[in-house]
Formats: sequence, C-alpha cells, structure tokens
Amino acid sequence: MTVPAVVLSHPQLGENIGAAARAMKNFGLRDLRLVNPRGAWPNSKAQAMAVGAADLLEGARLFADLKSGIGDLNLVYATTARERGVTKEVLTPKEAVRRLRLASARGATCGIVFGNERAGLENDEISLADAVVTIPTSDFSSINLGQAVLLVAYEWFLSADQTPAARIEHGPVHRMPTRTELFQLFEHLERELLESGFLFPPDKRGAMIRAIRASVHRARLTYQEVQTLRGMIVALSKGKHRVTRT
Amino acid sequence: MTVPAVVLSHPQLGENIGAAARAMKNFGLRDLRLVNPRGAWPNSKAQAMAVGAADLLEGARLFADLKSGIGDLNLVYATTARERGVTKEVLTPKEAVRRLRLASARGATCGIVFGNERAGLENDEISLADAVVTIPTSDFSSINLGQAVLLVAYEWFLSADQTPAARIEHGPVHRMPTRTELFQLFEHLERELLESGFLFPPDKRGAMIRAIRASVHRARLTYQEVQTLRGMIVALSKGKHRVTRT
Repeated sequence: MTVPAVVLSHPQLGENIGAAARAMKNFGLRDLRLVNPRGAWPNSKAQAMAVGAADLLEGARLFADLKSGIGDLNLVYATTARERGVTKEVLTPKEAVRRLRLASARGATCGIVFGNERAGLENDEISLADAVVTIPTSDFSSINLGQAVLLVAYEWFLSADQTPAARIEHGPVHRMPTRTELFQLFEHLERELLESGFLFPPDKRGAMIRAIRASVHRARLTYQEVQTLRGMIVALSKGKHRVTRT
Repeated sequence: MTVPAVVLSHPQLGENIGAAARAMKNFGLRDLRLVNPRGAWPNSKAQAMAVGAADLLEGARLFADLKSGIGDLNLVYATTARERGVTKEVLTPKEAVRRLRLASARGATCGIVFGNERAGLENDEISLADAVVTIPTSDFSSINLGQAVLLVAYEWFLSADQTPAARIEHGPVHRMPTRTELFQLFEHLERELLESGFLFPPDKRGAMIRAIRASVHRARLTYQEVQTLRGMIVALSKGKHRVTRT
C-alpha cells in the first residue's frame, strides 16, 4: 500500500518543517515534500526539531511550485482553517484519511497539502486539490503548521490502528486469578469480617457481602494482588479477635 | 457540564506550557494546572507561545505537588508513552475522553495529568490516577508535551463534535440546481454533442450519454455551475456546426 505524501507549500519556519517530519514519523508517514521553503535547505532548525526523524528530512524532496509537487499524485486534499467561499467538498480529518486509505489500498498515490504559517494555502493552490480538509475546533481556532500535520498524521495512523480501546497488561507474573482463587479470598475476608463483628446487623449481612464482592470484582485483581490482599487481611486481623464482640 | 482539567506535572519549558494552553483553547478546555513548573511564573516564553490563549495562562493555578493539584478531582487519568509494568488499565485517548465525558456529564470533576519533557510521569504519580492513557504511535514514538496535550484535547473536542464528515457549503449564491435545471443542461449538452458528431457510433450513443450524465452527477454542480457549463457549451459549439459530419 502506498502512504500519502505530506506536501508543505511555502513553509516559512524550519522548526515547523522539523515538527512536521517528527509528527509524520510517529504516525507512519514518510514522504515529505517541500514546495519552495523559505531560506536555505537543508535547514538546521528543521534538523534540531525533527529529533529522531532526520531521515524524513534527508529524504524530503523540493519543488518549485505546488503543481510540480503534486503532479504524480492521484488524490490530493488541501488543508484549510476556514471556509474560503469556494464550493468545494469539506472533509473532517477522519473522513479524509478514511478516503485516503481506501484510495491507497487500491494503489492510488495520495497527498495532503498544508499551507504556510502566515496565510495558509492560496485559493489558486486549493483549486488544484480534490477536496478540502478542515480540522474542527472551538470558536478559538489557532493551529500551527506542525500541529496541523500532527493531527492529520494521527488520524491517518488511527484509521488502521488495532490498539484496543482499553486493556490491562497481564505479564507472565501478573496472571488473572481463577474463580476458585477469588472464592478463597471472599471466604477468607468474609470469615474475618464476620469474626470481627463488621458484618452487623445479621439481616444486612447478605447485602454487605455482595457489595464487597462487587467492589473486588470491579478491581479486576491479578492473582498476585489476590495473594497480597489475603496477606493484608492476615496482618490486619492478627490479635484483633480479642476485642471483637462475641 | 464540567470540563476536564489539564495538569502538567513539573513542566520544564515555558514553550510547552504555552503550547498546551493554546492547544486546550482550540479544543474547549480551560482549566490549566501546573505542578511545580521549573523557573519563574508567569513565564514569558509560555506567553509568547500561547498566542491567543493568554487568558488560560493567567487563569492557571500552581500547586506544590501532584496530590494537591488533583485533590479536588473525582476521576484522573495519567498519560504515559510506554508501558510501565504496572497492572493498570491502559486507555486510548479516544476511550479516555469517552469516559471523561460520561463522568463530566454526571457532574464528576475530571483531570488528565501529563508528565514532564524529560521523563514523563513518575511511577508514584501514576499510582495516584485511575487509569493510564497512551497515545498509539508507530514504532517511532516521540511526542512532546505540547503535542500530547494537543492530541488529547483534540479527542476531547471530537467526542462531542457535530461537524459532518463531509459537506459542501452552499451559500445563498450557490444553491443546488433543480432536477429540471439539470435535465436542461443534459439536453443542451447532448444536443450539441449529437450535432457535432461526438456521439458516434449510434449504437453506443445511449451508453455514452449515461456515462456523461454520471460524471456530471458526481460533480454535484451548483445552479451557477450548471449555468456556467451551459455558457461554456455555447462558446465551444459556436461556429463548429460547419465542420460536423452530417
């Protein structure tokens, strides 16, 4: 599968080019294209900001204008911060990357164009793209070039990411308890609580026990944590039996 | 509804505090808390980076340690870049904000804690939080403090955002054509193409016309664009009738 190019049109600050490269590498993008960047290239500020993404900067290609920078691509989206009064399709980043991934999977070459720090993309540049991508924000909308690349690259990565929404890592020393081990904890705890006089009055006992069990279940203890808890019960109940109400 | 606090633990660089404030304001967060930031406060570099979010910096509260910084909160998540070997629930940013929004809607006070630039959060700090949030990345994982706040704040905003995935803005001067206006375009275009000899051979004519209509539909033209297209047909077909094969 091809991976979309990130095309920076007339970027002004090396720091932002470096931040863009770093953002891209975090999220699996690698084809960086620079259309007429300001100042000399390579740029030392870009290198300082790229940190471990120096390889993307070294592989970056320079172009004199946007037309030549995107000439080999099949599908191109242009990022803009605001409506431009052009009747063009406007996509959220999530929808844009969904379409980019579909097109890439079919072998299309794709790219996302970002305008410069001062004015964004010119209307003439936008007219070369298939559609516009706008990052949704509150009424206060102030996203810089590096941040815009970061958010779009993040969405690109998420669109194929398999990370479970929630997980608990159980390493080899952190296995889950069996039900029997959990029942042993319940029996131990409930016996000590009963002896200590905590489960009082007797007609509330059943409900109290069920509430305690529910909070233990909710904690999703590992086997080791069950054992630790039993050790804590032993330690706390030691010598206490003398002061219980029997 | 309450809005989650962003808690920066021992931030080292004013730039990142400013970037965090700016990221927060873009995405509807406003409660910024700083646990023992390095250097003097207020910080001029933070102010320079915050741009239009100076009000968030001014409203930021300082705390001596994380415990006091999150003491009033009900639900707290800690961001980490890597697994820490602790058996703690690990959430994606999307799942974390889903839970934060649910809790906030029920009146809970919430917060997200971010560690400092060098080492992230200490294990002892993580032990004060309900769960951990880790931003999914490629094998190359290098997200700075300001970027981490940006991505989590972005997800917070998206979790209640109503922006349609794709839209075409039709202003008052860009209304959609009626079917009749579109049929008039088809009739005009097909008549001129027929007269010009383009719709040849006759047995392919129906399929050609249907393919042309499909591409016009796909363009989802406005009324004005339909009129412009008809003007273009008039201009192109002017005087051409003399060279057609009839």
